[in-house]
Amino acid sequence: MSRSEPQHASTVEDVIGAFGRNEPVLVHDAADREGETDLIYPAGAVTADAVAQMRNDAGGLVCVALSDPVCETFDLPFAQDIIDHPVSSNLDLAYDDRSSFSLTVNHRDTYTGITDDDRSLTIRKLADAATVGEEFDFATEFHAPGHVHLLRAAPNLLSDRQGHTEFGLALADAAGQPPAVVVCEMLDDETGAARSPTSARAYAQHHDLAFIEGRDLIDRLG
Amino acid sequence: MSRSEPQHASTVEDVIGAFGRNEPVLVHDAADREGETDLIYPAGAVTADAVAQMRNDAGGLVCVALSDPVCETFDLPFAQDIIDHPVSSNLDLAYDDRSSFSLTVNHRDTYTGITDDDRSLTIRKLADAATVGEEFDFATEFHAPGHVHLLRAAPNLLSDRQGHTEFGLALADAAGQPPAVVVCEMLDDETGAARSPTSARAYAQHHDLAFIEGRDLIDRLG
Repeated sequence: MSRSEPQHASTVEDVIGAFGRNEPVLVHDAADREGETDLIYPAGAVTADAVAQMRNDAGGLVCVALSDPVCETFDLPFAQDIIDHPVSSNLDLAYDDRSSFSLTVNHRDTYTGITDDDRSLTIRKLADAATVGEEFDFATEFHAPGHVHLLRAAPNLLSDRQGHTEFGLALADAAGQPPAVVVCEMLDDETGAARSPTSARAYAQHHDLAFIEGRDLIDRLG
Repeated sequence: MSRSEPQHASTVEDVIGAFGRNEPVLVHDAADREGETDLIYPAGAVTADAVAQMRNDAGGLVCVALSDPVCETFDLPFAQDIIDHPVSSNLDLAYDDRSSFSLTVNHRDTYTGITDDDRSLTIRKLADAATVGEEFDFATEFHAPGHVHLLRAAPNLLSDRQGHTEFGLALADAAGQPPAVVVCEMLDDETGAARSPTSARAYAQHHDLAFIEGRDLIDRLG
């Protein structure tokens, strides 16, 4: 870290502790991967205000990452595998072998599905689904397509893949949270690019949130 | 309109004129439908700054609505029809018979797909696709899944359906723009609900943008 950068830094234990207390945390993956910092919440803790924070302060897609066993239980596929169209072949991402996108869903008690109230309801019910497991009737509770993106994690989390999906679920596991986390990319208003780690770290400091580099999570939880 | 509401009002001709000059416009569908105002852009005019405006000032999903003939040309399905999972049955929306969602895509020249630069590139290339038609090689240009939602319009636009997808494409048609428009729902930070028509009208007035009620577009373009 250069001397001109903010000195705000959290330990892995700080981040796990915050996540266990239902606080959002910030994780920067790696300069040579997406180069993005995501705001990550335990899904069960997401209120309407939290959704507003994500869209106002982060700006990316509001996605719920679910563990591989949860996706197996509810038969949630990778989107790439169900799109029977030439656009889904040769995904050829610069930063990984595949996308984590699964279906998009709304809880059936939502109205349009997009408001902060509606998205937070869908998100909290996904945490319920991840907690309850096979007794939870997924198709009775949710419909697709909807306004919340599901992401399907790699089976062995950080040993398999080092994306925000896996960082979030590894944190949930370490913090004793259910395997459902919300991730939202932090974008930059000035540059048209992702928010830089320096800027994301300053945001975390200003809002008293924990910020961590992905490599530190890999060292401790991978 | 009650006397306490802002008096900002645009005519249908104002809105068509603005859209033809590549300006965004605001359309409120109806109190008894979604009850939402969307910020709507001609897709070909969307810059990185416009994406930042949508995520900062509107807050909903950034979606590109394409006409039915364009979707036919590129074989773009309704998402509901390709999801082979019980969540996609009995969609049972309160406000319409079906969702307009099609695939999600990124242009292949994007990196992660989510930044303002990346989403605006994907959006402008979709306008190119809608302009060029069948000579455009959709699967060579785009991949799915991605970070921009495609919406498929009803074949006869406002005669068939009165959603923002159809309002946007009816406006594009009237304004001589290609059949590709971006729609983004305006959300409210305080209430957790959609931004009220009064608040959306005040936003339009403040930013010198045209605001129109869906019923006025139906009367003129339906």
